[in-house]
Amino acid sequence: MKASKTVKSSSPIGIFDSGIGGLTVADAIHKLLPSETLIYFGDTAHLPYGDKAPESIRAYSVRIADFLLEHGCKMIVIACNTASSIAYETVKEHVGGRATVIDVINPVVAEVSSMKKITHVGVIGTRATIRSNAYATRIVRQNESLKVSSLATPLLAPMIEEGFFNNKISRTVINSYLSRPKIKKIDALILACTHYPLIKAEINEYYKGNITIVDSAAIVARFVKQSLAASKLLHSGKAGKHRFYISDFTKSFEQSTKIFFKDKLKLEHKNLWK
Amino acid sequence: MKASKTVKSSSPIGIFDSGIGGLTVADAIHKLLPSETLIYFGDTAHLPYGDKAPESIRAYSVRIADFLLEHGCKMIVIACNTASSIAYETVKEHVGGRATVIDVINPVVAEVSSMKKITHVGVIGTRATIRSNAYATRIVRQNESLKVSSLATPLLAPMIEEGFFNNKISRTVINSYLSRPKIKKIDALILACTHYPLIKAEINEYYKGNITIVDSAAIVARFVKQSLAASKLLHSGKAGKHRFYISDFTKSFEQSTKIFFKDKLKLEHKNLWK
Repeated sequence: MKASKTVKSSSPIGIFDSGIGGLTVADAIHKLLPSETLIYFGDTAHLPYGDKAPESIRAYSVRIADFLLEHGCKMIVIACNTASSIAYETVKEHVGGRATVIDVINPVVAEVSSMKKITHVGVIGTRATIRSNAYATRIVRQNESLKVSSLATPLLAPMIEEGFFNNKISRTVINSYLSRPKIKKIDALILACTHYPLIKAEINEYYKGNITIVDSAAIVARFVKQSLAASKLLHSGKAGKHRFYISDFTKSFEQSTKIFFKDKLKLEHKNLWK
Repeated sequence: MKASKTVKSSSPIGIFDSGIGGLTVADAIHKLLPSETLIYFGDTAHLPYGDKAPESIRAYSVRIADFLLEHGCKMIVIACNTASSIAYETVKEHVGGRATVIDVINPVVAEVSSMKKITHVGVIGTRATIRSNAYATRIVRQNESLKVSSLATPLLAPMIEEGFFNNKISRTVINSYLSRPKIKKIDALILACTHYPLIKAEINEYYKGNITIVDSAAIVARFVKQSLAASKLLHSGKAGKHRFYISDFTKSFEQSTKIFFKDKLKLEHKNLWK
């Protein structure tokens, strides 16, 4: 899809998530494309999306997309697995030619489906993501010779949010999940949750580097770069001021942002549903 | 409130929660009153209540209360902190004289407010429970000389649900939370989440038995007993068949029930919102 004529290469990239986990995607984009200006929206008032009705998730996503368009975004990245699986088509249709819409599932599915020397892919994520079966269905549709095994790992996201990682606790929890028979014989593992890039090194350590760890934040960042380059909207030079909005403000979110986004950031409270 | 004339001492006790955590309350009632028949309803389809709109939580609670009344319950126990703080009055009014309605907050508040030799009470629970401030507000209303300090401990419930307790992980997580300055100088601690009775021993160990651990499940069970005795509805003899319903059935709930309810139980799927 071509971007609207009103957007320029200096226009910001909009990124949204149900919470602050999507900041790992923002962080990956920021590292790969330091000249780009970011506008992040975390819908903490409606968190977690995994428990909401599909029509609610679509309505929230469309409202957030409008907010990002009002800020002149040239691209909208849905940095949330649940919204990606449920609201991507709706947001894309709503946004139309005004901006490019990118989700976190399709780029990963495309990359994994074309990987060489891989026969059995594991997927770990929240209960809602695993229940949706979005990764397994799409991967097999693109490459039916691949076997996909999915495992819900619901303790990982709250564990990371609370700052328990790179320590004994996280090692023990990670070992307990990854040793389950269901995903025992995989040769690649998709981290299907925006929180998990933060424990990628620990997961890699568990496998002693013997399997491919598929980090969706990094893949999405590369996809964003390709897509902007293709539409000649890659920016060079100095980035503008990044903005980070959340719909429900609590101290704990503010503290947690440090975990997810390496640069300094200031959260702003913005209720879109008043 | 007097119970309806149609209920007998042999009528069941209805218990509901947004999930299966309320089974610890059922377990405590079962242990204290083994002659009573229990009907449990876990609204797993709408879990967690902490993120839902108050009007939704009231509507769900009323529908579940109707279901329990249809099963002839003499008493309805709201074994969920969120529903207790938001829907207790609504459910009580809706049920009227048909059954006694008991929540999990008021009995604990009454007990703590009248405790001797206590000046500073800590409260730990989910983000939603702590944000509601229900315990602190009510305790201070009943005994204004008490100081109440609340701390959200969001990792504990998923940790327990995943079976990580009585081990190194839980010890480390518990130590990390309980050593926070906010609740450092308390002389009593309220476990304001139905999951926490399962880590009561570990919490007690952290404090080396030096502070009073207030376990709401045990208090609610005693309150149920007193209340039934007062209305001459205590049953003696053999209990009937206990029934355990959940509104959304998944394997993981079935596995987790073992953690929360010590006796064998069989989960039945019952969607009240078809």
